[in-house]
Amino acid sequence: MSSKDHPGRGPEGGGGARRPREGPWAFEMDLASRWLDNDQYGHINNSVYYLLHDTIVNLYLAERCGIKAFVHDPPTHGSSPGGGVVQNESDLIGLVVSSSANYFAPTSFPCKLRLKLRVVHLGSSSVRYECGIFEVPVVVAGGGEQQEVERQANVVTQTTHVFVHRYTRRPVKLMPERLRSGLQHLIVPGHWIGRDAKL
Amino acid sequence: MSSKDHPGRGPEGGGGARRPREGPWAFEMDLASRWLDNDQYGHINNSVYYLLHDTIVNLYLAERCGIKAFVHDPPTHGSSPGGGVVQNESDLIGLVVSSSANYFAPTSFPCKLRLKLRVVHLGSSSVRYECGIFEVPVVVAGGGEQQEVERQANVVTQTTHVFVHRYTRRPVKLMPERLRSGLQHLIVPGHWIGRDAKL
Amino acid sequence: MSSKDHPGRGPEGGGGARRPREGPWAFEMDLASRWLDNDQYGHINNSVYYLLHDTIVNLYLAERCGIKAFVHDPPTHGSSPGGGVVQNESDLIGLVVSSSANYFAPTSFPCKLRLKLRVVHLGSSSVRYECGIFEVPVVVAGGGEQQEVERQANVVTQTTHVFVHRYTRRPVKLMPERLRSGLQHLIVPGHWIGRDAKL
Amino acid sequence: MSSKDHPGRGPEGGGGARRPREGPWAFEMDLASRWLDNDQYGHINNSVYYLLHDTIVNLYLAERCGIKAFVHDPPTHGSSPGGGVVQNESDLIGLVVSSSANYFAPTSFPCKLRLKLRVVHLGSSSVRYECGIFEVPVVVAGGGEQQEVERQANVVTQTTHVFVHRYTRRPVKLMPERLRSGLQHLIVPGHWIGRDAKL
Repeated sequence: MSSKDHPGRGPEGGGGARRPREGPWAFEMDLASRWLDNDQYGHINNSVYYLLHDTIVNLYLAERCGIKAFVHDPPTHGSSPGGGVVQNESDLIGLVVSSSANYFAPTSFPCKLRLKLRVVHLGSSSVRYECGIFEVPVVVAGGGEQQEVERQANVVTQTTHVFVHRYTRRPVKLMPERLRSGLQHLIVPGHWIGRDAKL
Repeated sequence: MSSKDHPGRGPEGGGGARRPREGPWAFEMDLASRWLDNDQYGHINNSVYYLLHDTIVNLYLAERCGIKAFVHDPPTHGSSPGGGVVQNESDLIGLVVSSSANYFAPTSFPCKLRLKLRVVHLGSSSVRYECGIFEVPVVVAGGGEQQEVERQANVVTQTTHVFVHRYTRRPVKLMPERLRSGLQHLIVPGHWIGRDAKL
Repeated sequence: MSSKDHPGRGPEGGGGARRPREGPWAFEMDLASRWLDNDQYGHINNSVYYLLHDTIVNLYLAERCGIKAFVHDPPTHGSSPGGGVVQNESDLIGLVVSSSANYFAPTSFPCKLRLKLRVVHLGSSSVRYECGIFEVPVVVAGGGEQQEVERQANVVTQTTHVFVHRYTRRPVKLMPERLRSGLQHLIVPGHWIGRDAKL
Repeated sequence: MSSKDHPGRGPEGGGGARRPREGPWAFEMDLASRWLDNDQYGHINNSVYYLLHDTIVNLYLAERCGIKAFVHDPPTHGSSPGGGVVQNESDLIGLVVSSSANYFAPTSFPCKLRLKLRVVHLGSSSVRYECGIFEVPVVVAGGGEQQEVERQANVVTQTTHVFVHRYTRRPVKLMPERLRSGLQHLIVPGHWIGRDAKL
């Protein structure tokens, strides 16, 4: 897909959005697109990218930070319902309070998507994630071998999570250690936004 | 749902988002929530609100502006493939180049949602929509009658559409009259954003 | 949409499916279609109808049968983890073990859909639902008034739920009274399938 | 997940469904599950499996059979609008006229899914697909290496497609050669259903 294919591509486009410097990223996963990701215009619908963003974020939280989306057990007795320091990550859930996206180049099913994640702000109870979503085309090189070629991000999304207690829904005052440490691993040099400081 | 239920509600919350003045709006529709709108945390997922936003926008474009999402017929011969003035709205499609949302209070299936739409910027080839999404609870009044009570918006979303030619995907230089006129009807006093002027 | 519009309509179509006698039904709700319900062929995708079916079933279970999809509280102490008679409907969830659908006539966003529900089998721990999904076109009558006109079902879906304990996931031996009574209200004359007797 | 985890697993369960003999299959793809595939009960929702089924079918049709979901060009002039023999696969679309599924064991995001496809009936204008959907757990073997372990299908889905002309929506009398040949490659020994003969 060339830069002519989309009004948001190139120096004059994108609704005035400046294209972010893309690398480095801290975590990635591959996801196949699906038939119903495409809308009637034949492109992956803008809302689907937020769903993909949620997928990499919740995967990271489950695998690296101890967050459990679904619990079969009652809450731990040591948790403080008033929203103080929470002992156990499984008592926490992340609520999205804001989100945004810039769409630079459309993609369509069938395609392979690569998602890349970093943290651009980390407060005491909140975190802002940035996710680059890339189409990964397969091209045939000179010798006949297939090669994956990655280009610029098709879409860049951001969401801000506030961590709240699962039952009281009050924000935590301080994230528990395993969660904070997991999120700190997603911070990369040169990508930090000095906002949301009060959360 | 009271203001205590969500970290984004109230003066201290919302990731720093200022709550927009809500009225007036220009067009509205009701939509029922669905079972799979809720994620595992028991709330309508943040990505779903963009899908609802797309629904009211595309409904308005189809019913009031002559935009046809799906055409069974070949393109009109009068259209100019180079991206000039397009004679026929059915040759155009709207591509989303940016989007954002602020989440003020969560909602959950089963609930009735009311969507309200306005235009906050209109350029020569682009438009920015703002959509307020409201849960509409039914309460029983003193005399035993049921009453719908509408409160503040749960979520406010924005997207920017650039209108392109269906086949060339180039932005139109000037929207055709029926489309422009339909969009102008969505502009309301006191809600205008002076950006994206170059599109 | 006439009977010529779809290969499944009429005596020769439908993959051999006999069109079910449609009425009577026991419960109904209206749902608006959404932009991304349509796939690239411009019709509501076949999988979406199952999602709509789940929506009316879960709405009925929540509002009339005491089933709570999402619980913030630990399980009731009186529940028997071994899968015996369960005292409290909120300890139960319904798992779908089979489903099927016949598609008689396609529909497209934007349209208004009416869902109608009945129970066609009720066992000790399982229930089979049948749902008719109707497009409800608005036509203008002679005097200029608008009128809703309902025709034959566009799609008829069935699913079988087995009720299991929320934590042990074992089937209940006997449904609690409020659930059984709510489901019995969905049985209508002339629509009963004598299968699944062992569940 | 053991056979005790689901009421549909084992000789007594599944709403009476006999578990199909699983192999052999003719085509497969891997797909990651997504955050919103899970419903509030913490399992991938029953409707999602039909969406996955559609994904592998449409991928196969696009890559191996010449079917184009989205065309930017007007229809080919050589096509016969009356529904006769169609020269060009891109003039055809497949409409689903019936579908069914049996759910043997639930799965949950995050997990890796493997989809396997075969054709169990092929008529002059219609085809019936069967798709096995498998969770692919990663286990650590004795020596510390990771190994993918595939078990029985979690879900088996079927849909019947009737191929119709994109513009007239009439069934083709005979599928064009590339399509028929592609579908014949999905037929495997021992899995054939002698129904739908008239389509």
